[in-house]
Amino acid sequence: MGMTMTQKILAAHAGLSDVKAGQLIEADLDLVLGNDITSPVAINEMKKFDTETVFDKDKIALVMDHFIPNKDIKSAENCKCCRDFACRHEISNYFDVGQMGIEHALLPEKGLVVAGDAVIGADSHTCTYGALGAFSTGVGSTDMAAGMVTGKAWFKVPSALKFELVGKPGGWVSGKDVILHIIGMIGVDGALYKSMEFTGEGIKNLTMDDRFTICNMAIEAGGKNGIFPVDDLAVQYMKEHSKREFTVYEADSDAEYDKVYTIDLSELKPTVAFPHLPENTKTIGSFGDIMVDQSVIGSCTNGRIDDMRIAAKVMKGRKVAKNVRCIVIPATQEIYLQAMREGLLEIFIEAGAIVSTPTCGPCLGGYMGILAAGERCISTTNRNFVGRMGHVDSEVYLASPAIAAASAITGKISAPEELGL
Amino acid sequence: MGMTMTQKILAAHAGLSDVKAGQLIEADLDLVLGNDITSPVAINEMKKFDTETVFDKDKIALVMDHFIPNKDIKSAENCKCCRDFACRHEISNYFDVGQMGIEHALLPEKGLVVAGDAVIGADSHTCTYGALGAFSTGVGSTDMAAGMVTGKAWFKVPSALKFELVGKPGGWVSGKDVILHIIGMIGVDGALYKSMEFTGEGIKNLTMDDRFTICNMAIEAGGKNGIFPVDDLAVQYMKEHSKREFTVYEADSDAEYDKVYTIDLSELKPTVAFPHLPENTKTIGSFGDIMVDQSVIGSCTNGRIDDMRIAAKVMKGRKVAKNVRCIVIPATQEIYLQAMREGLLEIFIEAGAIVSTPTCGPCLGGYMGILAAGERCISTTNRNFVGRMGHVDSEVYLASPAIAAASAITGKISAPEELGL
Repeated sequence: MGMTMTQKILAAHAGLSDVKAGQLIEADLDLVLGNDITSPVAINEMKKFDTETVFDKDKIALVMDHFIPNKDIKSAENCKCCRDFACRHEISNYFDVGQMGIEHALLPEKGLVVAGDAVIGADSHTCTYGALGAFSTGVGSTDMAAGMVTGKAWFKVPSALKFELVGKPGGWVSGKDVILHIIGMIGVDGALYKSMEFTGEGIKNLTMDDRFTICNMAIEAGGKNGIFPVDDLAVQYMKEHSKREFTVYEADSDAEYDKVYTIDLSELKPTVAFPHLPENTKTIGSFGDIMVDQSVIGSCTNGRIDDMRIAAKVMKGRKVAKNVRCIVIPATQEIYLQAMREGLLEIFIEAGAIVSTPTCGPCLGGYMGILAAGERCISTTNRNFVGRMGHVDSEVYLASPAIAAASAITGKISAPEELGL
Repeated sequence: MGMTMTQKILAAHAGLSDVKAGQLIEADLDLVLGNDITSPVAINEMKKFDTETVFDKDKIALVMDHFIPNKDIKSAENCKCCRDFACRHEISNYFDVGQMGIEHALLPEKGLVVAGDAVIGADSHTCTYGALGAFSTGVGSTDMAAGMVTGKAWFKVPSALKFELVGKPGGWVSGKDVILHIIGMIGVDGALYKSMEFTGEGIKNLTMDDRFTICNMAIEAGGKNGIFPVDDLAVQYMKEHSKREFTVYEADSDAEYDKVYTIDLSELKPTVAFPHLPENTKTIGSFGDIMVDQSVIGSCTNGRIDDMRIAAKVMKGRKVAKNVRCIVIPATQEIYLQAMREGLLEIFIEAGAIVSTPTCGPCLGGYMGILAAGERCISTTNRNFVGRMGHVDSEVYLASPAIAAASAITGKISAPEELGL
């Protein structure tokens, strides 16, 4: 029996010729990631090891992004802990205020992850890098600590679900709609501890940013990771962003999948996940008026340049509805700069939105747009659990940048078509 | 005995032909201001009145600026309280996310304060509007509540200090250095309950933004208010920003002053207020190396377009020092937009600074740059009390945008001259 893409990457990193689903392996890591919330815990855990020496100062990335610029004394102390650690161990990839960005947008942009890599990150959305044909997955801070010391991690080799994508998305349908559709279809535990392997001729109709978004939310279906095959577009992206060599792994033709789903992208409609689970999806047009108090466009899921361009296209020359706060958060300094140079930020400000410096902020109820009781937010983020963005009696609706932007203008959950677009 | 500018404005608003220092009067108000921290308290206090009706829906300004976009659930509830109140009473000048800005930069920009006005605000830096020849002062939330209901406030008529400004500031000396020099000279209670009246031929060498900065910090010398005579520049500013009629009050030639100070602007040097009081001033060159962890350029004191231009001039083509976080905060959406159009924001980002959406944030330890124990910040804000920007063991040094920008580049408190400027 052949191996899936994920299994091939894991086998190679475990020094094995083949692996099977369920097998326990120890794999070498190409990168160990932590952020300002999880790294201090890991740094503290490292004290339990005989050595505090890191396995490779160039293969650890510490990204301050959740609560910075420091939102309070606690977050200031957390960042200081990471900063001191990075300085002490000469960590090459330490990102603080000014070089920063949301980790999962930043790492690919900086060329720190390429095809064939095995990456762990103490953040659940580490699965994002599957868009580049890498194996990457979220771990706890203890695993991060072990990874920083040993450069290795234990994994149970996952079985896989195959998503055969065909056709071309129409209208305003984007990667976010694809993954919301899938989560709606299989549920938030539909891919529990499995690889979500995307394939099919439809992939060529998805931008890199679409693919990052899709892999980013694999965890919202319970997936161990999400992964795309490496095509010319992915190669081009890596050549533009990284100097590192990469390895392309292809699934064997006889690889085993627990289930195969075929998704016709041309049939998808803009999709919204209703409170309080990402699986509670409905398509635009299938529900009545839902007024919103806030619209958030950003996050590791949808804060990339394509997302900014789409939102700007919708908001250009229009005004944010009177009672709506619209918060746009480019995911990295580079995206912020690019969006500024393209005139997108000007469009947002003129529309009455605000543009935040890169931060995870509101997505996890950190800051920069927390909800009061009874408030409702349309958001391009990835989770809409109870109280995720603030008060337990607030509501989060997940959608694409096109929908979040249109909703900011109309004041209710809307598609751009309602604006004549 | 004649009256000072302040006394003349108060007399006119009390319907009296003259007033004397120490006299208790009741004055009609042209504007009552509150922000997202103080307004909810005032709104609650209003319940003690027979009526909840406001005296004039067009003469109340509620500006959400301290902790928004909402930094936590509490701030979200506070803003919601203000929003609901503004909606219920049809307050014309309610400013939320998107229309927002830091109150004391926003109100003059929106033309809501002009010469001859009497203004109270539940924020200590309400004294800023004296730059326009208005009487404005900070009050508590209870006075704000009474003001919103009655349109009046009680005052003890202040005596005055006269600051005769002569000469022209040289090099990088700005309004911030003028007021820091004065506070250093007279102390943080040097003007306790007095008007600080600025006059003299040197005024023509101060921009409007210099004057806003100077009046803004009158309270840091204990002043009841700060005030400038209305010259052509002030008239031009008001005509550009406001449709309201204004009244110019001039001090009588025989007005009484508790003390008269003459300040030669040409002799001033860039000035820094050391921890933990604004009066602890030293001039650049008179102290050794003081390393900084953070530089904040913004606030109601120094977040205006001139401040952005000066900081950009210093930072252009340079890089923020490795261990410094540089946080630039344009004070209003309009300043943000203007700075973006002039290419200033691009300069900041390219230098490795971050640009925040308008907020009071770090100035009062709210968010967006809170300090950990042992950290040191150079800041263009107005207060450097113990723990003001975070941990009680952190330090804040107050200075002008030129100094804060230069210090961000060198990593220690520096003047632009050290960069060859």
